[in-house]
Amino acid sequence: MSGNTFGKLFTVTTFGESHGPALGAIVDGCPPGLQIGETDLQVDLDRRRPGSSRHTTQRREPDQVRILSGVFEGRTTGTPIGLLIENTDQRSKDYSKIAEQFRPAHADYTYHHKYGVRDYRGGGRSSARETAMRVAAGAIAKAWLAQQGIRVRGYMSQLGPIELDFKSWEGVDDNPFFCPDPARLPELEAYMDQLRRDQDSVGARITVVAEGVPVGLGEPVFDRLDADLAHALMGINAVKGVEIGDGFGVVAQRGSEHRDEMTPEGFLSNHAGGVLGGISSGQPIVAHLALKPTSSITRPGRSIDVHGEPVEVVTKGRHDPCVGIRATPIAEAMMALTLIDHLLRHRGQNGDVRVATPRLGQR
Amino acid sequence: MSGNTFGKLFTVTTFGESHGPALGAIVDGCPPGLQIGETDLQVDLDRRRPGSSRHTTQRREPDQVRILSGVFEGRTTGTPIGLLIENTDQRSKDYSKIAEQFRPAHADYTYHHKYGVRDYRGGGRSSARETAMRVAAGAIAKAWLAQQGIRVRGYMSQLGPIELDFKSWEGVDDNPFFCPDPARLPELEAYMDQLRRDQDSVGARITVVAEGVPVGLGEPVFDRLDADLAHALMGINAVKGVEIGDGFGVVAQRGSEHRDEMTPEGFLSNHAGGVLGGISSGQPIVAHLALKPTSSITRPGRSIDVHGEPVEVVTKGRHDPCVGIRATPIAEAMMALTLIDHLLRHRGQNGDVRVATPRLGQR
Amino acid sequence: MSGNTFGKLFTVTTFGESHGPALGAIVDGCPPGLQIGETDLQVDLDRRRPGSSRHTTQRREPDQVRILSGVFEGRTTGTPIGLLIENTDQRSKDYSKIAEQFRPAHADYTYHHKYGVRDYRGGGRSSARETAMRVAAGAIAKAWLAQQGIRVRGYMSQLGPIELDFKSWEGVDDNPFFCPDPARLPELEAYMDQLRRDQDSVGARITVVAEGVPVGLGEPVFDRLDADLAHALMGINAVKGVEIGDGFGVVAQRGSEHRDEMTPEGFLSNHAGGVLGGISSGQPIVAHLALKPTSSITRPGRSIDVHGEPVEVVTKGRHDPCVGIRATPIAEAMMALTLIDHLLRHRGQNGDVRVATPRLGQR
Amino acid sequence: MSGNTFGKLFTVTTFGESHGPALGAIVDGCPPGLQIGETDLQVDLDRRRPGSSRHTTQRREPDQVRILSGVFEGRTTGTPIGLLIENTDQRSKDYSKIAEQFRPAHADYTYHHKYGVRDYRGGGRSSARETAMRVAAGAIAKAWLAQQGIRVRGYMSQLGPIELDFKSWEGVDDNPFFCPDPARLPELEAYMDQLRRDQDSVGARITVVAEGVPVGLGEPVFDRLDADLAHALMGINAVKGVEIGDGFGVVAQRGSEHRDEMTPEGFLSNHAGGVLGGISSGQPIVAHLALKPTSSITRPGRSIDVHGEPVEVVTKGRHDPCVGIRATPIAEAMMALTLIDHLLRHRGQNGDVRVATPRLGQR
Repeated sequence: MSGNTFGKLFTVTTFGESHGPALGAIVDGCPPGLQIGETDLQVDLDRRRPGSSRHTTQRREPDQVRILSGVFEGRTTGTPIGLLIENTDQRSKDYSKIAEQFRPAHADYTYHHKYGVRDYRGGGRSSARETAMRVAAGAIAKAWLAQQGIRVRGYMSQLGPIELDFKSWEGVDDNPFFCPDPARLPELEAYMDQLRRDQDSVGARITVVAEGVPVGLGEPVFDRLDADLAHALMGINAVKGVEIGDGFGVVAQRGSEHRDEMTPEGFLSNHAGGVLGGISSGQPIVAHLALKPTSSITRPGRSIDVHGEPVEVVTKGRHDPCVGIRATPIAEAMMALTLIDHLLRHRGQNGDVRVATPRLGQR
Repeated sequence: MSGNTFGKLFTVTTFGESHGPALGAIVDGCPPGLQIGETDLQVDLDRRRPGSSRHTTQRREPDQVRILSGVFEGRTTGTPIGLLIENTDQRSKDYSKIAEQFRPAHADYTYHHKYGVRDYRGGGRSSARETAMRVAAGAIAKAWLAQQGIRVRGYMSQLGPIELDFKSWEGVDDNPFFCPDPARLPELEAYMDQLRRDQDSVGARITVVAEGVPVGLGEPVFDRLDADLAHALMGINAVKGVEIGDGFGVVAQRGSEHRDEMTPEGFLSNHAGGVLGGISSGQPIVAHLALKPTSSITRPGRSIDVHGEPVEVVTKGRHDPCVGIRATPIAEAMMALTLIDHLLRHRGQNGDVRVATPRLGQR
Repeated sequence: MSGNTFGKLFTVTTFGESHGPALGAIVDGCPPGLQIGETDLQVDLDRRRPGSSRHTTQRREPDQVRILSGVFEGRTTGTPIGLLIENTDQRSKDYSKIAEQFRPAHADYTYHHKYGVRDYRGGGRSSARETAMRVAAGAIAKAWLAQQGIRVRGYMSQLGPIELDFKSWEGVDDNPFFCPDPARLPELEAYMDQLRRDQDSVGARITVVAEGVPVGLGEPVFDRLDADLAHALMGINAVKGVEIGDGFGVVAQRGSEHRDEMTPEGFLSNHAGGVLGGISSGQPIVAHLALKPTSSITRPGRSIDVHGEPVEVVTKGRHDPCVGIRATPIAEAMMALTLIDHLLRHRGQNGDVRVATPRLGQR
Repeated sequence: MSGNTFGKLFTVTTFGESHGPALGAIVDGCPPGLQIGETDLQVDLDRRRPGSSRHTTQRREPDQVRILSGVFEGRTTGTPIGLLIENTDQRSKDYSKIAEQFRPAHADYTYHHKYGVRDYRGGGRSSARETAMRVAAGAIAKAWLAQQGIRVRGYMSQLGPIELDFKSWEGVDDNPFFCPDPARLPELEAYMDQLRRDQDSVGARITVVAEGVPVGLGEPVFDRLDADLAHALMGINAVKGVEIGDGFGVVAQRGSEHRDEMTPEGFLSNHAGGVLGGISSGQPIVAHLALKPTSSITRPGRSIDVHGEPVEVVTKGRHDPCVGIRATPIAEAMMALTLIDHLLRHRGQNGDVRVATPRLGQR
């Protein structure tokens, strides 16, 4: 298909432009009988919502999602779930200027050449706004996975030059950065304020962890769990790198150091990030992603217009100085969607997942 | 499907265990009229072949590929291309010991729990030997892409702690490391010799580059070119990380630094690695991958057997001390397979690719 | 995927229950630049709309479709097209009685056992109402195919025992039966009036024809054009049989009679229905489908309830005495969706379709 | 993909030309632990094999299949199963004449225009010989389905003008026609002898039945069980029509006649052919297919050559005067492949199939 469907058994197909009438999605293949409602989806949508702090875009959208099908009397019926979010706060005039310009580091240039025509308002389909539907669909996946004892959570592990060590899950959701170490918050606030004064933006690193995943998810050779996670996470706007477990750290590791030894009590380490041979090992699945700095900054930049003429681009409008700040719920959603799809695929070929549950504890 | 098919329009489906009778693949969707023969595939297979230097496994396989269909009078007919490589040098006795043991960092444990049964000989399906068919299929993709002026090449950019700067493509194929800087070869040789004395293994970093790719390849939102490249490259045995362009380097970058400005003469930089908004920009596409150290080392390691009892594992047999050394042709193949599939998908929806050719030169 | 997506490159994914808030669809992979608007879709929706004559259900739905994305300034942008139809005339009370009963020949019984839960109101997802979105999506496909000189049209070739010979396309759309022979209309009217007096329903046979299809569409071996047409047409509610060309008539034919001979001026006959070896021959593509009688009739029928107890079912509510009467636009839509998907797939693998245009005229 | 893969979870991908070195297939997604061997596949291959009676082509192929992967110590491992059949009896000289001619009713003309190049020897990829791999793959599906209590069988229900009523399964496999009424065999023999004297060919009708199928298989809306069966059966060479249950007989039926009433003891009839709303009802699944007469006959026929010049075609070589005679095992295979794929898909979304088992007996 042409790229707007994710998954094989649990599929999510999305539509919608930043400044069109609405965003929508169809979630197909959800197991029947799951208790779910609009409020359950809203929780994650609100975590991703802009305007939640002064460090994110001031575009204010209620992002109110409606469930149009597939849920009857509070439970999923196994039929496709239609989701809709109306766009309310659009201000198209903000964007009229750039109709003929290619903003540096944006998709304007590539969309223009791929399709020959594009909805230039706010980036149209390439806007980060599209990720709202992923978060809504991911909330359904999370709810079902929770029933299986699987929990997907994420946090910011680096903001620009500031590395953040994981302290605890507590409080991660209580700050706009999804920072796992509340003591560092003043530092982050100060950095962001300086960034705004510099009229610049910066990148970020997000870490996502899935716990309670049974042994056996993942379809070698090509559709390995780690390969599909890489596809899912690299498919998020602005992501330029994905790691599983130690990631690029393995390059300089020795085999005697990297290999996760096992005892009857379980694994002694998790350098692999919970995936061996493309299949989940029963350990926590750990992934990291790198997000580039926001492309829309008010500093003038050199570019060209659709006629090939040089132009100076200044991106006005309301933008996050660090797109990574709001990326954590999106990364969680994409990991959840990957896991549920693989769990259903595994169950299809191999039957009841319990048979694949490890007979060992895990560290 | 259950993971053994790659691609949507140009598809590769593979089969084969390390110590079964043969490896095979079906390449479906290849455009008709392409001049191709077994010798063309053999070139890349020989680049990947074990035993080509003292730094790789001494298992000696001619890896002679046969084309069984889809090519008539030297040209592809548009029908599926059947490929076959008979396994000749197997020595199953090397592996009989580990039938009931889970080798640390191997897929033994996960295969056992996923399927309940496994071909334990040499890792069976999880053996790196499986990648031979990817290389053979990739050679067909490369040949067709070459007709479109697209060239895919790779090199080793880091061996363990030794970082290797790119000097020139010349000579990359003349050394067993695919090292882009011949002056560093003695250093690499010495490092590998010490590694063998240490009875240990090490990781590596590979860089792959595609030149001549037209603007417009990639299907947002989920099947972006970079997302599908991440899927393709993370799906290679032992890979734990994938980067596009500056990769994790973008985390600490400023937006004013990262954005690739444009002039009528072309882009002024390529931090993005040739992909904007998930679509090729016409610049060279640059990807990096991290490979973990070889799991099979002769140093004893703690593990368990299928009964959950503790065992000490010593992996005999013939193994590469660095799987990364032979990974370059595999990475090239996976990038080539990703590009041809996206080119055909793009052509399907948007018609002749020439309409998407950039009107600017590229730096 | 779980069955709610049609096509591989030009995909249609639908959602919606008969008595839920809305029906919707996402059309993905539509070529960019196509001029299309809601009014273009409305034309076919109105042809399918209930209440258009006294011979169809009196449920009155404006079936007003909205385009929510993928069309900008009147042209498709290549991004997914979101479609929505709000359900307005629902009267759920009509259906409350049958919540626990399985209506004979309906999907109540199978949905109940497949999913364990179902939206029983008006058949929910299994209602013929779902086909509205197929018609809307089909209208987009028709518009693009028309640009390529391809025209898809259908008519009723049999109503119950009454066989209808094709006279001309003129007038087919001017009568509620899509009858190709206006002289027979009084006969059809009389038959339907008697049928209503009998409190019974009847089946129908629909014929669909595509003209202007170039040679070369269809992907042997499994995804032949005729096989995919069979999938598309058998997937319409109530269809129990599909024929290509002479269909079941070929059983008693001799090879010397069936084979369509060729001369430099073209084919001398079209027993094959425009498909040879699963690939379009350039002749008109002709398909026939058989629709079963409406299952909802007011005559009491024996059945059971969810507890396995015997019940007598009398289906009230507003139903077509012949579902076939409104099936023609649906059949056209499914054939159009099949053709555009195959045309894009062909173009992807083989490039510009013109190279596949026949060098002969066609009879 | 380009048409050579069947199924979504249990996939079969085939390759091979009639006169190339070999035919092959990859069966992916087979559940692990199934006891299977080459001899099990050979049984069905021998049922389909040419030369088994004087009424089929005298081309003599041992059709010896080899299993190259996916089976270890007699049981499937869950990894892809590679299958290979070497072509032995080719006699290419028989076909050299028609290299530049388009045989009427053959795929020569359409392949030539679709691909611009073709392997003309014996029809190449379009030869019925390709179906051998379907039969081999189908035998694996049948073996697994048998474990679930599902049995797929077929018979010839009409040969040319001769309709054959089903008497019993006994003896169906003991005659070359798969005739379900041994008393009619002399009649069939006589008809075939006359046909050969007439230098002509004839069509046939095949019926396939699956018993023991649980309630709940099939994915509405598009991937209904009946729609996918239609795709599977229409995809067999020479098939021009497919019916489920009463098929085209429903056109003239009344609703009061067609609907299969239910009692606590089960259904009272099976006009639906075991599918309601696209989902299996637990009743036997019944499908019929129509095969056209063999196109290769020795009677001269008018056609053109690749230059558009008129030619008289006389098809020599060894051909079945009725391709339908050997079609029964192929139809069984395609139904079995459809059922196993849907069973695995159902199990993926809905879990253990037992929950979908009907609580009623079935007639």
